[in-house]
Amino acid sequence: MATQSSYRLTLAYRGTSYAGWQRQTNAVAVQQVVEEALERLVGSPVRITGASRTDAGVHARAQEAHLELDRPFPERGLVLGTNAHLPGDVRVLAARAMPEGFHARKHAWGKEYRYRLSRAPVLSPIDSLFVAPAPPRVDVGRLREATAFLPGRHDFSAFALAGGSHGQPFRTLVLAEWEERGEELAFRVVGEGFLRGMVRSLVGTLLEVGEGKRAPEGFASLLAGRPRSEAGPTAPAQGLILERVFYPSPWRAEGDPEAPVVT
Amino acid sequence: MATQSSYRLTLAYRGTSYAGWQRQTNAVAVQQVVEEALERLVGSPVRITGASRTDAGVHARAQEAHLELDRPFPERGLVLGTNAHLPGDVRVLAARAMPEGFHARKHAWGKEYRYRLSRAPVLSPIDSLFVAPAPPRVDVGRLREATAFLPGRHDFSAFALAGGSHGQPFRTLVLAEWEERGEELAFRVVGEGFLRGMVRSLVGTLLEVGEGKRAPEGFASLLAGRPRSEAGPTAPAQGLILERVFYPSPWRAEGDPEAPVVT
Repeated sequence: MATQSSYRLTLAYRGTSYAGWQRQTNAVAVQQVVEEALERLVGSPVRITGASRTDAGVHARAQEAHLELDRPFPERGLVLGTNAHLPGDVRVLAARAMPEGFHARKHAWGKEYRYRLSRAPVLSPIDSLFVAPAPPRVDVGRLREATAFLPGRHDFSAFALAGGSHGQPFRTLVLAEWEERGEELAFRVVGEGFLRGMVRSLVGTLLEVGEGKRAPEGFASLLAGRPRSEAGPTAPAQGLILERVFYPSPWRAEGDPEAPVVT
Repeated sequence: MATQSSYRLTLAYRGTSYAGWQRQTNAVAVQQVVEEALERLVGSPVRITGASRTDAGVHARAQEAHLELDRPFPERGLVLGTNAHLPGDVRVLAARAMPEGFHARKHAWGKEYRYRLSRAPVLSPIDSLFVAPAPPRVDVGRLREATAFLPGRHDFSAFALAGGSHGQPFRTLVLAEWEERGEELAFRVVGEGFLRGMVRSLVGTLLEVGEGKRAPEGFASLLAGRPRSEAGPTAPAQGLILERVFYPSPWRAEGDPEAPVVT
């Protein structure tokens, strides 16, 4: 019997043209194009599992995935060989041999997402693939006031997209903040896990607070297991990017990001 | 006879899918899609003239163009109405009524370009539409040493693309510098005018200095009217962006960028 070799791939993609990470029957997913590129490289079908099931149109600066090959393969060869078969909007940034049994999603300690918004009167095409338009007259102070309720363990049922098969609805966020730079606003969030559509529903609801349509305390009351209908709309996918995935030792590799220090 | 009304449009575009700014017979240019959108808006053919004839694949954060209409049109209507007919990779950011006779290119005092490079081992698709890969082992100190020769008035014949109809080859640069941020390098240059392909030829030749293939003093000697064959290659279009166009009064409009202070 062949010995198995485990690898972790770090992937980046523009989600614009994809139906999301996870392989689907009627639309092209990122998982599919990566699996097809790997199959062309190694000559047999390869199955990969991603740490985050990013939705249609959502981007990744550093998604992590694992795969098993039936023989060892040089790490650099996996990077260059897979990229040779990938479209230009998906790239393998790094490949690392891992201890057997490594699972990109189950072993992840947490993930960081960013959601970018622009307050420019007209959204520039230089930004528009990765940035969503902010509603007019958003009060950043109100955004921050509501966001201060987020760190901690809450029942996020009000922020889960229908159709997500997520089991229990409690998740722990360790960091949530708004960055402001010129006309741009960005929501940065780190959590141990996220329900399907959760970051975009949080952003859509926080923007209602920022516009004065909802009180910060009303937002806080949604963190106790309210129905989806009580929260705000789901913000568009183009603004969301999976920034990185955190692993604890023994799964951390050299060069991995450190988990943020929570104060 | 109808009175003419002059307007200045500020435009942004991703150049990726275009044959450049200037209208062509066999390929789609940015000028053409903007003229077609304007024609659909005002109901008659419109001709626009851009400040910079950006090449195929080159981007603009703020290109400027002028047009004449045979009747006044609200500025905000020009922005929203034109954008309604434009593809998503081209946008009118602003429209301003101008004194009669305004010419976007002839009245420009100067222009600023940036060329972005990444030293990442694999160029991420999050960046790759606007950033070119840097050659391995570029010495930023050597880049800067050669770049220090650039400000001033020189004969840039060695850096002019064949086919450019530029008349005399002297141009004056007032600022040229390299910015370094993490894995990214950016060449920023402000000049009163540029020959066709000049910024990309400068970058391609400066990178040869940075790689140790050419001495900084050898680069300097190219600024005295040498043939194109003595300079380095033309860097790829994807990394170049027209950042802004500067106008002197009386053509400056409210909100226009100030020309950089040269020290």
